[in-house]
Amino acid sequence: MELLKQRILKDGRVKDDHIIKVDGFLNHQIDIDLLNEIGKEFKSLFEGEKITKIITIEASGIAIACIAAIYFNVPVVFAKKSESKNIDGEVYETVVHSFTKGRDYTVILEKRYLTQDDSILIIDDFLATGKAQEGLLDISRQASATIAGIGIVIEKGFQGGGDKLREEGYNLQSLAIIDSMEPGSIQFRD
Amino acid sequence: MELLKQRILKDGRVKDDHIIKVDGFLNHQIDIDLLNEIGKEFKSLFEGEKITKIITIEASGIAIACIAAIYFNVPVVFAKKSESKNIDGEVYETVVHSFTKGRDYTVILEKRYLTQDDSILIIDDFLATGKAQEGLLDISRQASATIAGIGIVIEKGFQGGGDKLREEGYNLQSLAIIDSMEPGSIQFRD
Repeated sequence: MELLKQRILKDGRVKDDHIIKVDGFLNHQIDIDLLNEIGKEFKSLFEGEKITKIITIEASGIAIACIAAIYFNVPVVFAKKSESKNIDGEVYETVVHSFTKGRDYTVILEKRYLTQDDSILIIDDFLATGKAQEGLLDISRQASATIAGIGIVIEKGFQGGGDKLREEGYNLQSLAIIDSMEPGSIQFRD
Repeated sequence: MELLKQRILKDGRVKDDHIIKVDGFLNHQIDIDLLNEIGKEFKSLFEGEKITKIITIEASGIAIACIAAIYFNVPVVFAKKSESKNIDGEVYETVVHSFTKGRDYTVILEKRYLTQDDSILIIDDFLATGKAQEGLLDISRQASATIAGIGIVIEKGFQGGGDKLREEGYNLQSLAIIDSMEPGSIQFRD
């Protein structure tokens, strides 16, 4: 997605060869016009897929999932980090390792909001090693939901999680794939 | 907002005289059609106010803030719970007490995303004692931003936070104010 790549080049701040900050437009301050274009792009990429729900994980996936959901005309369900345990039903849970935070955390989703009748699109802001996505896939399998696809805004291709998911047969669509980066330079995959 | 009140009566689950669960449509599973109507209602209620940014707090405020932002045509900035410290700039910070979780937590917002040039609308899903809103007001004062208004989806009127903010002179608009509740019965303020 050319508009997104140009925005990453303009406003992304590469801290080292693994960390890029896009908090000016994607995950702290949110550019709603850009998110609208991202939502339309996901709708176009997954055209023809049956999608009954969009699933994401708190917190930074929520904005993207909700704007995309306007174009898909389906509800969003976001998995909660289990500390936010304002939850009173039966839950699916899984453990996700965060590289950014250097620790494991438990993620939960109430069973009543994801069932075998659902065909889901997983949406998230970043994909690196793929641990968060694997957590959502695990929850979706527990629910016996159909996994129609995975939509990612920025994939850090050099960390391998995306290619692993593609090899496993998932319909993974990333709007921008960074193959390498360093301060002052970002190479996108064609 | 009649549509919202009807939905609360239909799908809200009152656990006791202080806790109501609306996670089927507002803060776990999200009904995007309803959020669109909520966004339009906020736009109508704050018509004529100068608003340059919508401010909220992770996680459950993000969805509502982003859909509302479409109608206001402004960016969203969400304050982060400081554990999610993928932050590298100068930050405003404040401490918020959560009654639901029974503890204090620190909330941060990068200084570059809120300045004295901003005139902000604070948006959140719930207002009870008003602690989360006071945290966002504190951050906004640190930034010397103008506070144009506060928009709340569900105010628990019997907990008093909303009336306190009104007495302090804030333009607080809540789409539904619950004055009392118990399992099987919810009374809204007229």
